[in-house]
Amino acid sequence: MGSYTEKSREELLALKEETDRAYEEFKAKNLALDMSRGKPAPSQVDCSNGMLKEMTDYHTEDGVDVRNYGILDGIPEIKKLFSDLLDIPKERIIIGGNASLNLMFDAMMRLYVFGTMGEKPWGQLEKVKFLCPAPGYDRHFTISETLGMEMIPIEMTSDGPNMDQVEKLAAEDEAVKGIWCVPKFSNPQGICYSDETVNRLASMKTAAKDFKIFWDNAYGVHPVFEDVEVKNILDACEEAGTKNRPYYFFSTSKISFPGAGVSLVAASDENIAEIKKIMNAQTIGYDKINQLRHVQFFKDAQGLRRHMQVLADCMKPKFEIVLNTLEKELGGSGLISWENPKGGYFVSVDVMPGCAKEVVRLAKEAGVVLTGAGATYPYKKDPKDANLRIAPTYPTVEELQQAMDLFCICVKKAGIEKMLQD
Amino acid sequence: MGSYTEKSREELLALKEETDRAYEEFKAKNLALDMSRGKPAPSQVDCSNGMLKEMTDYHTEDGVDVRNYGILDGIPEIKKLFSDLLDIPKERIIIGGNASLNLMFDAMMRLYVFGTMGEKPWGQLEKVKFLCPAPGYDRHFTISETLGMEMIPIEMTSDGPNMDQVEKLAAEDEAVKGIWCVPKFSNPQGICYSDETVNRLASMKTAAKDFKIFWDNAYGVHPVFEDVEVKNILDACEEAGTKNRPYYFFSTSKISFPGAGVSLVAASDENIAEIKKIMNAQTIGYDKINQLRHVQFFKDAQGLRRHMQVLADCMKPKFEIVLNTLEKELGGSGLISWENPKGGYFVSVDVMPGCAKEVVRLAKEAGVVLTGAGATYPYKKDPKDANLRIAPTYPTVEELQQAMDLFCICVKKAGIEKMLQD
Repeated sequence: MGSYTEKSREELLALKEETDRAYEEFKAKNLALDMSRGKPAPSQVDCSNGMLKEMTDYHTEDGVDVRNYGILDGIPEIKKLFSDLLDIPKERIIIGGNASLNLMFDAMMRLYVFGTMGEKPWGQLEKVKFLCPAPGYDRHFTISETLGMEMIPIEMTSDGPNMDQVEKLAAEDEAVKGIWCVPKFSNPQGICYSDETVNRLASMKTAAKDFKIFWDNAYGVHPVFEDVEVKNILDACEEAGTKNRPYYFFSTSKISFPGAGVSLVAASDENIAEIKKIMNAQTIGYDKINQLRHVQFFKDAQGLRRHMQVLADCMKPKFEIVLNTLEKELGGSGLISWENPKGGYFVSVDVMPGCAKEVVRLAKEAGVVLTGAGATYPYKKDPKDANLRIAPTYPTVEELQQAMDLFCICVKKAGIEKMLQD
Repeated sequence: MGSYTEKSREELLALKEETDRAYEEFKAKNLALDMSRGKPAPSQVDCSNGMLKEMTDYHTEDGVDVRNYGILDGIPEIKKLFSDLLDIPKERIIIGGNASLNLMFDAMMRLYVFGTMGEKPWGQLEKVKFLCPAPGYDRHFTISETLGMEMIPIEMTSDGPNMDQVEKLAAEDEAVKGIWCVPKFSNPQGICYSDETVNRLASMKTAAKDFKIFWDNAYGVHPVFEDVEVKNILDACEEAGTKNRPYYFFSTSKISFPGAGVSLVAASDENIAEIKKIMNAQTIGYDKINQLRHVQFFKDAQGLRRHMQVLADCMKPKFEIVLNTLEKELGGSGLISWENPKGGYFVSVDVMPGCAKEVVRLAKEAGVVLTGAGATYPYKKDPKDANLRIAPTYPTVEELQQAMDLFCICVKKAGIEKMLQD
């Protein structure tokens, strides 16, 4: 079709008429689809229904009755499973409740109330700043915003956050206390941090002694098309002599059940000891029945990886619909650019500056709810109003094809209208 | 046998010889019993095994798939169950994770970081003091101690905390920010607060505008011999015009599974809104599968109460062994006094001042681990070294009888030795 940006006003007007007609036809279909969140489809969640089977053995290998009190930091067998899966010594793992988001929030709260390694609690500081690679995960930003941090957006590159920016800010300002990272198949772009990025995060100078990397490896075992090796931040920091810098988070929210998974935080020995001391006041221990259910269902790390292959097979056709439809309808149009993720849960696109909100509005009016424009940026403010997150997992293949057809029409319609205005 | 305190030195020496012999005989039995915690026995936990059955229906009445993301504050049917059970409007209930202790800790952390209703966050204050009715629950005191609060012990009476002390301290000192309460079948004494106590807590003047009652109704539906009605603090505060004063906590830890229950916090509309705003950053929602399992197992509040009757039938013989053995072996001895609880999980005794630690030491040496002496007091410091908490639920009836026989011998031995020294 050629680039829209090179077309004459007359050509654009003709295209507008055509697009408007296509849009009105879609509206007449009365669609009602929700693509706003990274939710697995029911058919995908069904793959874990084995975990809902009757539980007949409720003792750990050591003979602990998981129905009763005890074990602060998780049963040994789930620690071993995660240890093998993520290549982290099991002594550096603490098992949490049903979601790693909760562990991240709790870690922040501990830093605010107790501080770490003898440094002043963050709640007693005038100002706390946090580096927020963007586009990024809106719930990370919500934690920072709720705590009143100043969020500093960091540009994303195909190797991860722009490390020149990160290093400069971390080195110069001791109010900069940390960074949010989704290192593998990042939300929303599907970017995998390069080894150089990981090493630079580990070895960079930071003005704050208690600079913290919040390493949310949410998609650590979630390839769709192809797996990618991302260097373990715990190892990188050990090598760089900054072992207390990272908190590593992981969960089975997008492996077993999103509402009822098992989460973990991993860190240096000293950090683990510090966390456990406070956790000991917070809880007698998280849900061990659910931990054992996970072990009984997956058996071991290999079993969990096989399960992820099954999920990838569910998701692949959906990612293909998104990417193929974008290519077919908008490839070379100049109206949009996108990443081709190898895994994760999202496809991130950039539409013409100033058009993202309008695309969301148009799609909603025609019955398809997208993630809000700006949601992927701190304070929900995308400076270019360009980025949109497509979450293809929840709808069926048929629904998704419809939604993507509509999406492409909305991108064209918003883009043409923008060009006609300018 | 008559009071030991009236015996001559010769009589005491003869009794000492007899008691020492009995103690040595016990040591030879090589017992290994743990009575340190309020853990239900496996046979009692078995009563909830129906909850481990296969789950075939995983949708709420509204059609929400509990396996997937969503619902911040709990599925409607579990809120209704608890609402009926505890007589709290369901709008004032937020469902938490597997333990109410975690909700209490989180509530404290929010007060430290965010404060409440516009008051200064507690983490920014020079000093925070908390009223600790004692003997009380050691894990409450651990939360306060971890946060660096100054804990002020409050004497317990048979109607609850000594309200003259409470009112005076709360009215005079604005650093006094709250009080820990276990209002029904209190841990460890099994005391039930009188209506007058509840009304005075609700209506008293407090120097701190943000004075908080942490109302841990852990044993709210846990009669053993006889149920007792305790006035609902939310109602009392509503009447007294102090509706934002209490946080009400409850859980099924000692109803279904201690490691995998469902918890709740209830509060005024304003408090609930404030909590939810921050919880929204902390979590997408707690484990809804477990919530629905609980509803499917108990059906409704009436079903849960029937289940509690089954558990009471398991526990009653154990409480009888404790109380009968104390009466038979030590009644009128002047060496010990105790409460006769109507429900809950413990029997609290006071041995001769200066003897509690020695009783624990002697019991341990003979193979029975008791809750540490002092554990029921702030900073683990019982000023009289007299209070001990007996947790009868975990051992079998046979084991418990042995343990209580030994316990009585240890009380005699420690008491006689003390008297011979004085």
